Amino acid sequence: MSANDAAVTGRDAAGWLGSITAWADAQLERFTPPAVTRPERLHTAMRHAVFAGGKRLRPALVAALCEGCGAERAAAERPAAAVELAHTYSLVHDDLPAMDDDALRRGRPTVHVLWGDATAILVGDALQALAFEVLGDLERDGGAAVAILARAIGAAGMVGGQELDLDPALRLPGVEGIVDVHARKTAALFGACAELGALVAGASDQRPTARRFGVELGLAFQAVDDVLDVTGDSASLGKTPGKDAAHERDTLVGRLGLDGARRCADERIEAARSALADLALTDPGPAAAILERVVRRSS
Amino acid sequence: MSANDAAVTGRDAAGWLGSITAWADAQLERFTPPAVTRPERLHTAMRHAVFAGGKRLRPALVAALCEGCGAERAAAERPAAAVELAHTYSLVHDDLPAMDDDALRRGRPTVHVLWGDATAILVGDALQALAFEVLGDLERDGGAAVAILARAIGAAGMVGGQELDLDPALRLPGVEGIVDVHARKTAALFGACAELGALVAGASDQRPTARRFGVELGLAFQAVDDVLDVTGDSASLGKTPGKDAAHERDTLVGRLGLDGARRCADERIEAARSALADLALTDPGPAAAILERVVRRSS
Repeated sequence: MSANDAAVTGRDAAGWLGSITAWADAQLERFTPPAVTRPERLHTAMRHAVFAGGKRLRPALVAALCEGCGAERAAAERPAAAVELAHTYSLVHDDLPAMDDDALRRGRPTVHVLWGDATAILVGDALQALAFEVLGDLERDGGAAVAILARAIGAAGMVGGQELDLDPALRLPGVEGIVDVHARKTAALFGACAELGALVAGASDQRPTARRFGVELGLAFQAVDDVLDVTGDSASLGKTPGKDAAHERDTLVGRLGLDGARRCADERIEAARSALADLALTDPGPAAAILERVVRRSS
Repeated sequence: MSANDAAVTGRDAAGWLGSITAWADAQLERFTPPAVTRPERLHTAMRHAVFAGGKRLRPALVAALCEGCGAERAAAERPAAAVELAHTYSLVHDDLPAMDDDALRRGRPTVHVLWGDATAILVGDALQALAFEVLGDLERDGGAAVAILARAIGAAGMVGGQELDLDPALRLPGVEGIVDVHARKTAALFGACAELGALVAGASDQRPTARRFGVELGLAFQAVDDVLDVTGDSASLGKTPGKDAAHERDTLVGRLGLDGARRCADERIEAARSALADLALTDPGPAAAILERVVRRSS
């Protein structure tokens, strides 16, 4: 069965995706300390950020590659929780007044609005440490898993992308500069998710191709995001559209026009499909389902 | 040779300590990317924070336990760099206007003064990720090493202590509340340093006692700090004295008076000496030298 065939048989894939959110939430519940743990305010704020109704796309990617490589979903529990904790920490810090200054996320007040900037900084710091603690405690390959995540979210990856986002003068010129920010801010972590899935499945030889699939998926995600910010509604975008223009953000649509940005997104989606086809997955259905969800941005 | 004997034969121990700063700086140089790495501003700011003339007490503690357990100092390279990177990240975030609002550290402008709050937040975030990357890449026991550091600097440790420091209402009442903050903010990481030294030396059976030595050493360090803030000069304290009173900070001196705080510090020093004696180190000299430096606070 090819990846494209799997994507077409949509019913099972949709069922698989539907089961992931609750599974990911259960892992996060298992590894995030209860709110009554001292310091209570810190733990309450950490839980507010973690349990905010996310779709858990990154844990899904870990699980899809893990199962696709023939292992049980149980093997993906720790990396799935870790990548979502890392993603959540980045959202808490991005929302700070010193950064994007967002008062709402998913319709709820952000951490700094409820508990102040100092606690919001500490919530992000604690969630990052927790992500690595959860990975470090893996029975096998904990060190390798930590190195994969750390490179993806450090100065060469997510944090570096956030820094480049602060100031156009820091970026490469033109479209290359935009794609570079997409690659660091989003695609690096997507690549790590897919690679971690292959790692914990014991499929070391699949790691490079899994990573490539994740990176291309992340670039597609961001390209679709740029388009949806102009054309989409809140439901499909998952946030308020028109924010890029309001923030005078450098986007693919701004550089290439709407049609050019759409072409760019299509190319990235094709590259992700191609990487998925190159992966010799025993069950490509889940990974294909995630790709289709990124393309359609529905549900 | 007992730990006390080793402490008395001061010349070799002083020589050992003198050699550590340059060794630790060399490890940090090896693992911290050059300033010309994109994003250049982020990496320049990371290096400003890391190469600030610190005495590298935490790397020294890792090396002292590693060598004391009979291994070569080379085995301590990665954990020594990692603990200092983690310590440095915490200083950058502590100095932020939303936290302690410090414009100077070791006589130089702090990161947020030079590059703004957003970049300072990202510098701390990137240094934390780098600390875990360096540990995760250990040839053996990377996962275990990461778990030790993560627990020490997360919500149960350093970050939790910083949160408790924000607001007296969050703390336990009385002296217990002060010691609890010392334990989390400082002693947890000291404990991790000592335990990591034993871990990379392959002395797993020594890990709990090494940890106890580090924790007691950290508590002694903080108790001495409270006393020196009242009685010391800038040279012995390593920062401006009188800051605790100026910030209306809750200290042992404030609760117990100067004599009471001194007694408290002496008890902690004795506890650290006792833990050191319980460690069956092949060479207790380096660990004893660190303890004496903490007691005397002379370089």
